[in-house]
Order: sequence, then structure tokens, then C-alpha cells
Amino acid sequence: MGRIKKRDDKLKLELRKKMLGELKLPEDLKKLSIQQLTDLAVEIRELLIKTVAHTGGHLAPNLGVVELTLALHKVFNSPEDKIIWDVGHQSYVHKIVTGRLAEFDTLRQFGGISGFPKPEESPHDIFATGHSSTSISVGLGLALARDLRGEKYKVVSVIGDGSLTGGMAFEGLNNAGHLRTNLLVVLNDNEMSIMPNVGALSNYLSKIRLNRTVYKVKTELEQFIQKIPKVGELTYRYLDKLKDSLKYLVIPGVLFEELGFTYFGPVDGHNLHQLTEALVDASQHQGPILLHVLTKKGKGYKPAEENPTKFHGVKGFDVQSGELPVKSAPPTYTKVFGETLMEIAAQDESVVAITAAMTEGTGLQEFSQRFSDRFFDVGIAEGHAVTMAGGLARAGMKPVVAIYSTFLQRAFDQILHDVCLQGLPVVFALDRAGVVGEDGPTHHGVFDLAYLRMMPGMTILVPKDENELRQMLLLALQMDQPVAIRYPRGAGRGVNLAEKPQFKVGEAEIITEGEQVAILAIGPLVEKAKQAADLLLQAGISSTVINCRFVKPLPREAILYWARRVDHLFTVEDHVLNGGFGSAVLELLAEAGLRKLQVSRLGYPDHFIEAGTIEELHALYGLDAEGIYRAVTGQCHPLAVERRHERNAKVYS
Amino acid sequence: MGRIKKRDDKLKLELRKKMLGELKLPEDLKKLSIQQLTDLAVEIRELLIKTVAHTGGHLAPNLGVVELTLALHKVFNSPEDKIIWDVGHQSYVHKIVTGRLAEFDTLRQFGGISGFPKPEESPHDIFATGHSSTSISVGLGLALARDLRGEKYKVVSVIGDGSLTGGMAFEGLNNAGHLRTNLLVVLNDNEMSIMPNVGALSNYLSKIRLNRTVYKVKTELEQFIQKIPKVGELTYRYLDKLKDSLKYLVIPGVLFEELGFTYFGPVDGHNLHQLTEALVDASQHQGPILLHVLTKKGKGYKPAEENPTKFHGVKGFDVQSGELPVKSAPPTYTKVFGETLMEIAAQDESVVAITAAMTEGTGLQEFSQRFSDRFFDVGIAEGHAVTMAGGLARAGMKPVVAIYSTFLQRAFDQILHDVCLQGLPVVFALDRAGVVGEDGPTHHGVFDLAYLRMMPGMTILVPKDENELRQMLLLALQMDQPVAIRYPRGAGRGVNLAEKPQFKVGEAEIITEGEQVAILAIGPLVEKAKQAADLLLQAGISSTVINCRFVKPLPREAILYWARRVDHLFTVEDHVLNGGFGSAVLELLAEAGLRKLQVSRLGYPDHFIEAGTIEELHALYGLDAEGIYRAVTGQCHPLAVERRHERNAKVYS
Repeated sequence: MGRIKKRDDKLKLELRKKMLGELKLPEDLKKLSIQQLTDLAVEIRELLIKTVAHTGGHLAPNLGVVELTLALHKVFNSPEDKIIWDVGHQSYVHKIVTGRLAEFDTLRQFGGISGFPKPEESPHDIFATGHSSTSISVGLGLALARDLRGEKYKVVSVIGDGSLTGGMAFEGLNNAGHLRTNLLVVLNDNEMSIMPNVGALSNYLSKIRLNRTVYKVKTELEQFIQKIPKVGELTYRYLDKLKDSLKYLVIPGVLFEELGFTYFGPVDGHNLHQLTEALVDASQHQGPILLHVLTKKGKGYKPAEENPTKFHGVKGFDVQSGELPVKSAPPTYTKVFGETLMEIAAQDESVVAITAAMTEGTGLQEFSQRFSDRFFDVGIAEGHAVTMAGGLARAGMKPVVAIYSTFLQRAFDQILHDVCLQGLPVVFALDRAGVVGEDGPTHHGVFDLAYLRMMPGMTILVPKDENELRQMLLLALQMDQPVAIRYPRGAGRGVNLAEKPQFKVGEAEIITEGEQVAILAIGPLVEKAKQAADLLLQAGISSTVINCRFVKPLPREAILYWARRVDHLFTVEDHVLNGGFGSAVLELLAEAGLRKLQVSRLGYPDHFIEAGTIEELHALYGLDAEGIYRAVTGQCHPLAVERRHERNAKVYS
Repeated sequence: MGRIKKRDDKLKLELRKKMLGELKLPEDLKKLSIQQLTDLAVEIRELLIKTVAHTGGHLAPNLGVVELTLALHKVFNSPEDKIIWDVGHQSYVHKIVTGRLAEFDTLRQFGGISGFPKPEESPHDIFATGHSSTSISVGLGLALARDLRGEKYKVVSVIGDGSLTGGMAFEGLNNAGHLRTNLLVVLNDNEMSIMPNVGALSNYLSKIRLNRTVYKVKTELEQFIQKIPKVGELTYRYLDKLKDSLKYLVIPGVLFEELGFTYFGPVDGHNLHQLTEALVDASQHQGPILLHVLTKKGKGYKPAEENPTKFHGVKGFDVQSGELPVKSAPPTYTKVFGETLMEIAAQDESVVAITAAMTEGTGLQEFSQRFSDRFFDVGIAEGHAVTMAGGLARAGMKPVVAIYSTFLQRAFDQILHDVCLQGLPVVFALDRAGVVGEDGPTHHGVFDLAYLRMMPGMTILVPKDENELRQMLLLALQMDQPVAIRYPRGAGRGVNLAEKPQFKVGEAEIITEGEQVAILAIGPLVEKAKQAADLLLQAGISSTVINCRFVKPLPREAILYWARRVDHLFTVEDHVLNGGFGSAVLELLAEAGLRKLQVSRLGYPDHFIEAGTIEELHALYGLDAEGIYRAVTGQCHPLAVERRHERNAKVYS
């Protein structure tokens, strides 16, 4: 932990004087009164706000589940009982009350505690999460194992209403409702995931919310039905059914009931009394239960309550004013993507945009307003998004599917089977490609080149800067075939944006020329390769740096031309080495029958990449100018990073 | 089409005398009376049975949709109106009535018509299908494009109750119910997909079936409600709601209604009168409609009605007796897998088996009976299957997930995110790996090595025969980490099955030794490499053949030892070349700094592989003994197959 910057020692001191610093958690929660828990909730909110203001992170979701988390840990006995946090960005409170208070200021920092549940950190984090909609499947697996082993613990899956739109959640409900083992699903319904939710299910939940008072008339209505005079033969026969149908009236969760769950709720997720009572009730019930809890995202911090989307995930903010840091001067890749797409859409009516619950994250907020009829947010449903895009393309539209690299993994089969198989003109905009920073291993987009490259008919473009992103998008929409563009999180370089495409498909850019070494790079690492070439030149080594731009098809001629001239060729990618860009280059060289050439690939070795800033991670894995320089000069064989990494990996455990 | 064997000329002659041969289809369907359609259905069933008895294929599903298909083409105007067949194995009748009667005897044959919808074949096949649960997403995409372009056609997605268990179908329903455009979803409910269905949704549909008569009392009940005396203030306020709740009583499809669909049904799927009426009604309604149609799988052919699972997909059969061909003498890989797993499960109580609606296909029928408490068929829900396995593994079990290679693509993200990230001991049994034969491009399992190889912590094993499959399964269950075993469709070689594992992790087998050439092979292609080595020896070329067994981690020492001794190294895999086994070998050689070695990779080039028998396809792509021999002797550079293939590809168009 030595590497962690201690950001706020005063905060720690302050804490010790308070309840949070004195309690033995989570055990002591059981002894606290509702009033004491309420006071504790206030302290936790303070801690959340102060910490995330420094570390950045998912503020609004955590402010929304303070009471729910306290109630869960009061009623259940973690880690014997298992609590699974769907997506997991709402697990900060859980971390605070399960032994990670002291390290809480290292949240999401390199070497610090993760912003998501992480079993290596604590036995209370029973399962790692990060991607959406997995918790019911995980919970069912744990519950079935418990039954088979004759154990008795409780299993609780906490899932948001946004995550419930993912098809996998439905698959889990369908299976759990059938198997009928004891499993509690807590639906944390805050009317939004990251953006306000969409989809019929969301409307359905809203209806339940509006019907809340109905619960109270249950008894009166039942008595009333008893008194109904028996008229009509058919009616008589169906009176029982009529009574049965009352459940649709008095129990709002019929959809879940039909799937085999017993529905409880809705209950006020900020009322600790109601919450603990409902959890105790639910925990004593047999079979699969769905407890519907209503919470408010951002609860207790006005700026976040008023703008929960903005405060969903933040980089840090001013606690007093609620002001977020001013955006960096060079526009982000995301912004350039959104603006270019609007420009294209204004000229071409066949262009439509699709996102999966990430309108703002993918830069489509303005597009969604300006071209509302040509914008589709399908909810957290990446598979459906891609196949629907296939349908749109088949019927003459030009769909652009904007999904983060890591989340598009969910649609792997759909890209292959519903787009590539028919060569349909769908453009995939993979934002957050490469390492993404503090969100860590579940969010790094470091597999996309490998998973897209195997797909027949796919073209893959990687812009070195925001100008190339713009041009590649213009190009992609003219190509009439499946195209993927992968670009990183964060700010561009502030370069000028050219009006028209300045290169053709398959055309590489030769950045520097030299006869000793060739460095093939893609994306923003092209700039690092160029800097490395400068360092190399100072050391007397002349190198060629090529911005390959295209991972599939590779710029064959440029690569082979230089491969024939140098002794040693390096590939540089912000991606895993197995099956990635460098691997494609090896394939090309083998097919061309090139021998005698030494090839070294720089990228990520065969393990999951931890959390840290993009710069920290690039430096760690030798993907900065110095790292490339060292690799070329033989001071550090690229694979050495694997060993070097192992020394650093287990900082926490 | 010259390559197609004309299997039954008599049948064609016969046909011409009948209605089917005389009608102009599908147009003439509109002129036919219900009686004439009924007669036509009889003819079509005859043709289906006679043809599939020869060609093999999906008999029972097609026998079940004869009337439904005729009714759809009578009511709608394909190809202006768009009909999407989910999965698509039930599209034979559609093919017969949309211009492919003459070629119907080439069904599923190399160069013949596909067993699945294929846009290259006909404008009536609006979208290619093969994998499950895509049709609602496709249909919604087409419908949205229609609206944006101001067109007026109808869109019909035909989906089975089995496919409805796939989460993607739910994602589609949720989105379509929200967007409220005109889209007709026909639920073809035959109470089974391939196996009898499981899951809460299936129970729910059964309940609807039992409640069918309820529809009739709707009017009487409504009148009755009007007469109810108004008692009690609260009751009075909720009387409207009570009336509203009637819909739950009289309309059985409340689950679909809650998702924003208007529910029609259920109607008898073999009653052409009811069917056409219901389709006309539904087509005039606004917004998303779900029409629930009850059909019987195998309808009209007794052996198939009595055993729809057996007749779901057949290799051919005797029409009179309904007898299927006797299984080949050497047991299939599937059978050896199932038997070995039972043996292990008998000794180790922590072993559980999971499948996704493929109990019989994956060889788990007997396991499901013998170890019913440790067997889970989760429905067509591959993502959930994998994540649930992660949960089971976390809680101390040893789950074995048996899913066809091509269908496991649906769980790509779950394998990576919910199993590998935590290094959980889940064993993946990928049946039907490599080309699978007549089911064609949607079903070939030729991407698995590439998509699994990039995952940190994954071990990949490829048995050369059924004995190695057995041993690898024994080994995998001792490894306490994620392991994948991929093995092909069909019979093994009839080798003896050894009791205990005869090799360790990472241990290759040297089959022959020679100093000129090394051939690295995996799976059943090891035998082909050995045969090629014999041919080479006759031609005076000495070769080393290595059965690599492990694709990850590669048997490093064996490969490097021989790579240093030969001039030319070949890799042979039943898999795409991009990112596959050969690519892994190139990575290893580059990392080891080996130069001066020529490497050629044999496998599938960068396009989708057509239908054909496994032998035909292996021969076409040079993956048989002769092909390997030719590649080594330079008579045919491996990449030549790409060009060679292009000449053959467009046989149909």
C-alpha cells in the first residue's frame, strides 16, 4: 500500500471520533437501533461524498443504497450469507461496513481498493462484478451449491432496475423461478441505471410505483368479494379465478409472480424500519423472492439528487458547490465521435445511432435530441442492440452502434452471426478501448481487436487521434460493410479536425523512416512510438514508425516493405498480446514467407490488468515512450513485463 | 448445381402431377380455399418426410409449422412483407412455397439449398438465422427502418417457445413493447424446443394452454361486474382497477401485455381457418402484437409425433418404419463425454453438469436421470449457464458446462468476466467444434480457439480421439481453474479408452520424427497429419508430426525443440486461421526469438464456411491427408485454398 497517496489524513482523524470509527462492523449493526442506524447513514454519506470528491467514482449509486446496505448487513450475516452486488459500482457502502473503512481513501487508486466487489479483497465480496445483469445467475449458482452441500446460508442478489433490462437477468429469473430454491433478489429500483431507463419493463415498474397504495385495500377487497351474489353459471365457475385474479390487483409484481417469484413490495428504500422489516419477512419465506425497493439515486447530496446522471460516475468534484472539474481543453474522442456523427446524420437520412444505456457516455446526448427519431437507446441489452442494427441495415439504414469496448463483449455472437455473416453495413463505435483507468479489470477494453479480428468480413480501424477518429467514421459510413472503430477513453490531442477523409482504406501512415528497426503502432500509442523513435535517434538507432490505422485488413504493402528492410520489428498495442494486432502482423509476415526478421510484440501479457490511471498502466506495461525505447534497446525484453508485473500484482493481499 | 446428387427423380415426377407442382407460389396461396390449403398441407408433409428421409435435417419442427407457414404466406405478401424465422430450422415449408421446390432435394447438401434462411438464396429469406432468439430484434430493426423510410410493409417474427427463453428475446420484447411500432411476433408454442422446455416461462405458457376456455366468458363477466353493488369507499375507488384486472383473467398473456404487447390467442396452429383469421386480425392491429399459436412438433408423421426429440434433427430415416439409422460402431465423442462424466460424478459429489437446452445433443441424457439433482438444463440461455456455473464453482462445486462450440459464442463475455477473471474451476465441454457438416455456417464451431485463447487463465485442450477426450476430462476436473475441451461432432476412431490420464498438462505427443518438416496438429486432424507424413515419406520427405493436445498453454518445449531442427513448420487446425492455433504457434516462435524458420498455417481462411459434410469441407480446405501433403510439397500453398474456394462459393447464386 506504500504507493497509495494518502489524500486526506484529516478526514481519517475526524472519522475516529465518530460512530463509524468505533463500531465493529458489520457485526455491531445488529445491535444498533433504527435511530442509530439513521445517524450512521448520515456519517456514511459524509464519508462517501468527501472521499469520492477526491478519488472520483460512482457517487450517486452509492448515496442511493446507504440504508439498503445497512439493512442488508443488519438482517443477514455476511460473509456466511452471500450478498451479490449486480454491476458492483454501488458496493462502496458495503466496503465501508465490511472492513475496508481504513483503506477507503485508496478507492480506485493504483494498488488501492477496487471500485467493484473483488473477492481477493474481502470474503464479504463473494463474487466479482462489473458488467451488468449477472447477479441473479451468480446467486442461483451459489444457492444451488448450498442446497447440494447441505448448507444453510442465505443468498441475496441486489440488482438495479437498469440491470434488469439485460436479457441475462431474465434468463436468471426464468431459471430460478423454475428451480424454486431459496433466493432473494432485491430489486433496487431508482428509475434509472446510468441514464433514465427505457423499455417496457421500466414503464411497468413505474406503474407499480404509482399503484403503491393499492396494497392497503387488499383486506377490504377480499371481504367484498366474499359478499358478491352468485349470478350466472359461467361466472359461478370462474369466481374462484376472479378471487385469484385479485392478486393482479393487490400484488403489483405480477410479472415476477408469473416467472415463479414471490413478489414483496414496493418498500421505501430510505426507510430503515420498513427495509429491515421487509428483509426479515423475505428471508423467512421459502422459494425465490423478489423484494422491490424504491431508492433515490444521489440521496442526501443535493447536487447528485438533482443531477444523478452527472453524478453517476465522476472524476472528482467540489463538495461545497457540487461543481465538477471543467472538461479538458482538447475535446474527448467521445465528443468528436458524437459531433461527427451528427454532421453525417444531418446529410444522410439513413444514418441511425444505437446505444445500450450509455447515451451520454458514448457522446450521443445531443444526437438523441437533435435526431430523436433516428436514435435508439435499447437499455442494457448489447446483444439486442447489435442484432436490431442488423435488421435496420438489412432494410436500408446505416446503423452506428456505440458501445464501450468491454460491454460489446456481450454481443460477440451477435456481431458474428447477425452482422458479419451477411456482411451488413453496421458501424461499431467502440469507445473506452484499451485500458480505461480506475474502473479496472472488468472495464478495460483490451480484448476487442482479438475478438473482432477473427470475424470474416470485419474491418477494424484504430485512430491515432481525434482527427483520425473523425475521418474513420466518415470513411466507415461509406464502406457498406461491417466496420469497427476502437478508440480510447479521454481527451484527444487537440489536433485540427480535417473536413474530409485524408486516407483510404488500408493506407498506413509512415511517421518516421529508419533502416534499423520498425515500430508498428496503433491508436494513441503511435505518438508514444514517435517519442521513442526520437529517444532512439539520440542513442544512434534509426527507426521507422508506422501508424498502421487498420488492424484488419492490415496495410500489407507498407508493413512488408519495411519488414524487408529492418532486422527487428516491434508492434505496439493497447490490447492483450494473445490474438491481437501484433499477432495479426505475425500472421501476415508468415504468409508472406518473411524469414530472418525478429518480431517483438508490446502489449498486455496473459493476465487481467488491474486498476490505475491510463498513464500508470501504460508505464507499468512498457507502453510509453520509455518502455518502447527500453524494449528496442534490449534493456527490457517485452515479456519481462510479465514478471515485473507479478511483483506488483499482489499489493493488496 | 452439377455437384448435387439427384437423390429421388421419381419423387420429382410424382410431384408434378400434384397441386404443389402446378401452383404459382406463394401468390396462388391467396386464391386457395381452406380445404385446398388443407390438401396442400398433406402434400407438403409427404414431401418433407420423403426428402428429409434422404437428406437428413430438421423434420419434426417443419412438420409442426406446415399450416402456420401456409397461413402466413396466404395472409402476408412476402417478400414485401418480411417474415423472420427464429433459429430457422423450421423454414423448409417456407422454402418450398417460395420458389425452392425444384431444388428441395438438394437441401443441406454441399452446394445445395441451406437448411436455414439464407438471403443469398431468395428475397423471401429476409434475414439469415441459425442461432436462437434473434428474430424479435431483427424484426424490430426492420420495422423501425420501415417507419423511418415511410414504407408500409408488415414484419412478422416467428419464434418458438424454446427460443423465447433466450435473454435476447426478452431484450427484444422489452424494447419493442416500449417503442410501440407495428410488429407481429408469432409465438410458435410446441411445448418444446429440442428437448421439452424448462423454466418458469414454460410453466407459464402451459398454464395459458390449460386456461384456453376462459376467453369465452369475457363478455358475461364484464356484464356481471357492471351489476356489482358499490360497497365501501375504498372499494368504490378501486372498482375501475378491478375491471382492469379482468384482463388478467380473460386475457391469458398478461406477461406479454405487461411488456407492452397486445396478446392474441392461443389459437390452434393446425387449424387453417383459425390461423388465417387470427393472422388477419393481428395484422390489422396497431402496435406490437404477440400471437400465441399452439402447434405439435412432428405433426402428421406418427414416429415424429411420438418422439419429437429424436426427430428434431435426423441424419435420414426409413419412412415406413420411422427407424433411424443405427449408430456407428465407434462411439461418438458426445457419448464418451457423457459416460466419462457420469463415472467422475459417481466418485466426486461436487461435480455438476449444466447444459443449455441440449441435454441429448451434449450426451447428458443418462446423466440427467442418474444425477438429476446435479444436472441443470437452463433453457436456451448460454450466458446464464456460464455465470451460474461461476456461482456454483465459487461455492465449492465443480461445474461442467456442456454447450456446442458455436452456441457458447453467446457466453463469450460471461466466460471472460464471470469465470476467468476469478480463475474459477469451471470446465467447458465444447461439443461440435470444427466444421459440423450440413447445418452450415451458422453452426460450424470454428472460432472457439481464438475466442478462448485471449482469455487470461484459460486452459484449452483438444483431444485427437475419444480416448484423449476421456483423459482430458479427467485431467480438467483436477485442475481447479477454467478449462475448455473442444471436440468434434460425430464418431470417434474406436480406440480403447484408458482408465487414467496418460499425459500431463502441457505434454505433447510426438507421433513421427523427421528432420525436414514439422507438422503441428490438433484434434482428429492429427490422424490426417500422420497419414500425410506417410505420403511424404514415400516422396522422400521426412517429417515430424506432433499432436499438440494443448492450445493454451502450448507444449512449448516440444514445439521449440522441433522448430529448431526443421526448415519448415506447418500447423493444422479445424478452425479459422485468424487468431487460432497456428497464430498461437507464431506468437510462441516470435517470443522465443526463432528466426529462419518458415511457418505455414492450414485452416479456414477469412470467410464463412458453407454447408457440406465434414469430409467434403476438410477436403475443400486442404485439411485432409492429401491437402496437407500438397501443402508440404508446395503443390498448393495453403493460402491457395482461399482462391480455390472462391471459385466454388457461389454455386447457388
